[in-house]
Amino acid sequence: METLRWQNDQLILLDQTKLPSREVYICCTRWQDVCRAISILSVRGAPAIGVAAAYGVVLAAQNIAARQKDLTVAKLWEQLIPICNALDASRPTAVNLHWALDRMLKKGRSLEKAAIPDVISALKALAVQIHTEDIEVNTAMAECGAAALAKKGTPLTILTHCNAGALATAGIGTALGVIRALHKHHLIRMVYADETRPLLQGARLTVTELMDDHIPVTLISDNMAAWVMKTKKVDAVLVGADRITHNGDTANKIGTYGVSILAKEHGIPFYVVAPVSTFDISLATGDQIPIEERNHDEVRFLQGVPTALSDAPVFNPAFDVTPHENIQAIITEKGLIMHPDDTHIDLFFHQFI
Amino acid sequence: METLRWQNDQLILLDQTKLPSREVYICCTRWQDVCRAISILSVRGAPAIGVAAAYGVVLAAQNIAARQKDLTVAKLWEQLIPICNALDASRPTAVNLHWALDRMLKKGRSLEKAAIPDVISALKALAVQIHTEDIEVNTAMAECGAAALAKKGTPLTILTHCNAGALATAGIGTALGVIRALHKHHLIRMVYADETRPLLQGARLTVTELMDDHIPVTLISDNMAAWVMKTKKVDAVLVGADRITHNGDTANKIGTYGVSILAKEHGIPFYVVAPVSTFDISLATGDQIPIEERNHDEVRFLQGVPTALSDAPVFNPAFDVTPHENIQAIITEKGLIMHPDDTHIDLFFHQFI
Repeated sequence: METLRWQNDQLILLDQTKLPSREVYICCTRWQDVCRAISILSVRGAPAIGVAAAYGVVLAAQNIAARQKDLTVAKLWEQLIPICNALDASRPTAVNLHWALDRMLKKGRSLEKAAIPDVISALKALAVQIHTEDIEVNTAMAECGAAALAKKGTPLTILTHCNAGALATAGIGTALGVIRALHKHHLIRMVYADETRPLLQGARLTVTELMDDHIPVTLISDNMAAWVMKTKKVDAVLVGADRITHNGDTANKIGTYGVSILAKEHGIPFYVVAPVSTFDISLATGDQIPIEERNHDEVRFLQGVPTALSDAPVFNPAFDVTPHENIQAIITEKGLIMHPDDTHIDLFFHQFI
Repeated sequence: METLRWQNDQLILLDQTKLPSREVYICCTRWQDVCRAISILSVRGAPAIGVAAAYGVVLAAQNIAARQKDLTVAKLWEQLIPICNALDASRPTAVNLHWALDRMLKKGRSLEKAAIPDVISALKALAVQIHTEDIEVNTAMAECGAAALAKKGTPLTILTHCNAGALATAGIGTALGVIRALHKHHLIRMVYADETRPLLQGARLTVTELMDDHIPVTLISDNMAAWVMKTKKVDAVLVGADRITHNGDTANKIGTYGVSILAKEHGIPFYVVAPVSTFDISLATGDQIPIEERNHDEVRFLQGVPTALSDAPVFNPAFDVTPHENIQAIITEKGLIMHPDDTHIDLFFHQFI
């Protein structure tokens, strides 16, 4: 399984909505294909949608250039800006999408006087760089997190929520990257994976990834997490992130906030694993993060099977915000931010970024 | 919809596994039918399975008497005891099952010298009495709970887990009984119903019951409860119970323990609504309650549709235990037990039972 691949000037995406029953790939030739794939969650996970969106800009630029012979850079840019905005709006919570598009836009602006083919090449090169960086960043985070968690030297029981794995990134994953690195050192006893309703990214993706890698995993429904913490000696909770604000508040898949409270109650350290691109230090606190609400049928149906009356009223937030007080550390590719807050994050950014 | 009905010497059960798509009734003519219906959850909810099991004993006695002409009470009893044990073992956590069977057994023992038809009549009368009592007890709990919660006089937002409704009892329900009584006084603003994986009793049963009664309800997946508490001004959590020990520890549907922690974190009072028959004061603490673990396919499938790889390892406890410290009050048909612990429960039992 490969989350995404750039091949013959096209973006090939694994359709994650079909997993684990079927391994189907989508071939995106237009930016609209990428936009749709992001919004229906064929590709998902904050880092992965950042990479996909960057390639979306390349597809748009390629197609505009192919259609318009008297194209100037100014005219190209005039058309690319609303496309970037549309890609940016395809999912509102994860900031990596915005971060990747911002890099593409900045690159474009720096090429005002270049020839069109050079602009296209430069955009393509940057998208490939964003893609490659994500792979490297995953490995760095995994090593950093594993080093921090391996301190005791005894195999660990980990609980994770949603999918922060290879399928959410271009590399080995964020939270699951750390788990993979620990497993390499024989330091995983068991991973409990919350199924993560409504769209079951835990059951469908995390369990499949870990089973494929022969890492011990046990699937639970979301409401079992507290009882697992109480009865199964969980050593740590590891999750990914979609946006981290200046004070360390972290938006992640709905349910993460609850898990952080349960971890606190049981004295279990709660770690967020996320690349620096997930930080949005323009926002002071998590209250300012836009929380995506999705279609009510995601809760009323499960893989097409009704779970309730078809007119049942539903609340379906796709994310929630974990307050920084509940987070032991944020594990990044540049190191750990212990007890994240305004001061520690400022210090981290001054030192490393 | 009628949860259960005794008619023409048969037990008619609503098959709750088919709800809400289809309203199908099962006609039980043998005790084995009842046993199976309880174990596959066609009938569920602690009070309802107590009533069903009592009728199961009547069916067994009727059939034994019809088959054996030279039957003595001693011989009848010799055969009924293992049947009671089998019924008792059909689900291990809810104590109401044991409580109802115990009453049936005691009645049987008191009739050593009666004629067989009189024994059958007496058993049937007791089963009907257990059934009728449950209806009355529900109404009493509802009034008691509503009086306690209505104090502020403003409409309330309630969160509930699983189904503690009419479908879990013979009457108007335990937690949903209180909600129904509050609604009668225009004191319900909104009920948030956790869908309650794996078997979706919240989505399938609670939402359906409340919509049928035109009570405002919103379905959420289990992992949204914390975010709802944080953002929707929840005034109270109301849940049912399967067994309450001497110190007030309460076994209820898996997930209840987690919800109690989330309620505590948000300063929301957490109420258990349960009849006196749910108490098992022979057990000192919740650690002694047997927790049923069910088939792993309940988590790996949803209504027959796979949610994960078919060989995914699973942990599937059907219940968890909420420590008494997390419970504001237990609402019973005899009144409230505030801050339940050994002392308050002793006091309550001495005063009312």
